[in-house]
Amino acid sequence: MRYTSTTTTSDGITERDFDHDGVPGVLWTPAGDPTGLVLSAHGGGQHKRALGSTARAHHCAAAGLAVVTLDAPGHGDRPRTPEDEHYATEIRARLTTGRDATAVVAEYNALQAARAIPEWRSVLDTLVEPLGGATGSDVGFWGVSMGSALGIPLAAAEPRIRTAVFGLVGATDALTLAATTITASVRFLLQWDDQLVPRDAGLALFDAFAGPRKSLHANPGGHGEVPAHELDDAVRFLAG
Amino acid sequence: MRYTSTTTTSDGITERDFDHDGVPGVLWTPAGDPTGLVLSAHGGGQHKRALGSTARAHHCAAAGLAVVTLDAPGHGDRPRTPEDEHYATEIRARLTTGRDATAVVAEYNALQAARAIPEWRSVLDTLVEPLGGATGSDVGFWGVSMGSALGIPLAAAEPRIRTAVFGLVGATDALTLAATTITASVRFLLQWDDQLVPRDAGLALFDAFAGPRKSLHANPGGHGEVPAHELDDAVRFLAG
Repeated sequence: MRYTSTTTTSDGITERDFDHDGVPGVLWTPAGDPTGLVLSAHGGGQHKRALGSTARAHHCAAAGLAVVTLDAPGHGDRPRTPEDEHYATEIRARLTTGRDATAVVAEYNALQAARAIPEWRSVLDTLVEPLGGATGSDVGFWGVSMGSALGIPLAAAEPRIRTAVFGLVGATDALTLAATTITASVRFLLQWDDQLVPRDAGLALFDAFAGPRKSLHANPGGHGEVPAHELDDAVRFLAG
Repeated sequence: MRYTSTTTTSDGITERDFDHDGVPGVLWTPAGDPTGLVLSAHGGGQHKRALGSTARAHHCAAAGLAVVTLDAPGHGDRPRTPEDEHYATEIRARLTTGRDATAVVAEYNALQAARAIPEWRSVLDTLVEPLGGATGSDVGFWGVSMGSALGIPLAAAEPRIRTAVFGLVGATDALTLAATTITASVRFLLQWDDQLVPRDAGLALFDAFAGPRKSLHANPGGHGEVPAHELDDAVRFLAG
């Protein structure tokens, strides 16, 4: 992991841009010793410093947590393959013409998971030790929509992830299978009027999580309209 | 309202037993001026000082809220009519023999609502003024199961109720109709494996709330197994 720039904000939060084997990312650390580490994965079409990712990171750091985010494959400062271009065009075309994008989003998400999971595991290996023992045993994950499509199989493969905020994604065979093996405590966010995720598919995926602690939080509104109180609530859940 | 006894606990919370036109109840007030008033309705077969009601009241009072609870008709220190006895026997018999109790519970709940709503409105009229102006404009309701069966039509009739914690109850024609007219912010608790409330009936009732702010919190477990973190969360929601 090669740090390329460091800035400290007025509230004592340090932001470090880095490059990890060609994957650009940002590490936020709180003023004092972090009490845990949160892996924060952005949604489709977004990037490591998108408004949502940055707000989430600052809220977490203010609560004492370190946060790391990466540009997903084909997103942000990373090159797009012809496959990325194909899916981006196809998903956009379907959404703008009001056609069903569920299947093609699920296909692209599966591809993203296959590419991103090894990157996240490598970042986790690199960060856990320097951040200290307590942090290493308290790893959380926060990613909805495409962030959950990679986060759910990541958490299934990574028992170091103890707490996870997922949501805005529906059941597929692969995600359902992964969900049944996750032991982390899960907060699952569902938007009641999500135009990209059929309600029943979201409820079915929540149903599949087999761990003893899981909570579904459902709110009115579309895919991008998770209310602000869920942000605060998720920070409390991860910091808890 | 005639106060029959007053005690103050070590944390400065005052508990007053009272009788209001023949209805026994308890009023808890915090050490300082209350910032709001919560109407707390217990579930079927319980009473005004049941463990759950008392824990809820102490958590709310510690957060600065006044809390009032009543014995429901046919519950606690109140006389049971032959109808109460009939329903209590019938519901118990169905539950212990594993038969479906949904319809008979819904019937009894509707009867309870018709009897209890005028009592709650009268208590609210009596308490709002003495507790002061700020409290009177910030009234919350907290009742699940039978408590919601009366609380949902109560909140529909009482625009003074601005915030409400409901749950553990399924859609019926009467509850669905009431839910569509409620303007209060709603927190709805659903137990994913509720043996008394079919999952779809709970989801359908959540769907019916027409106000702009509502959140569903669903957790694994049966009817009586709402996790402790939802207690803290509900207090924060009501105190917010």
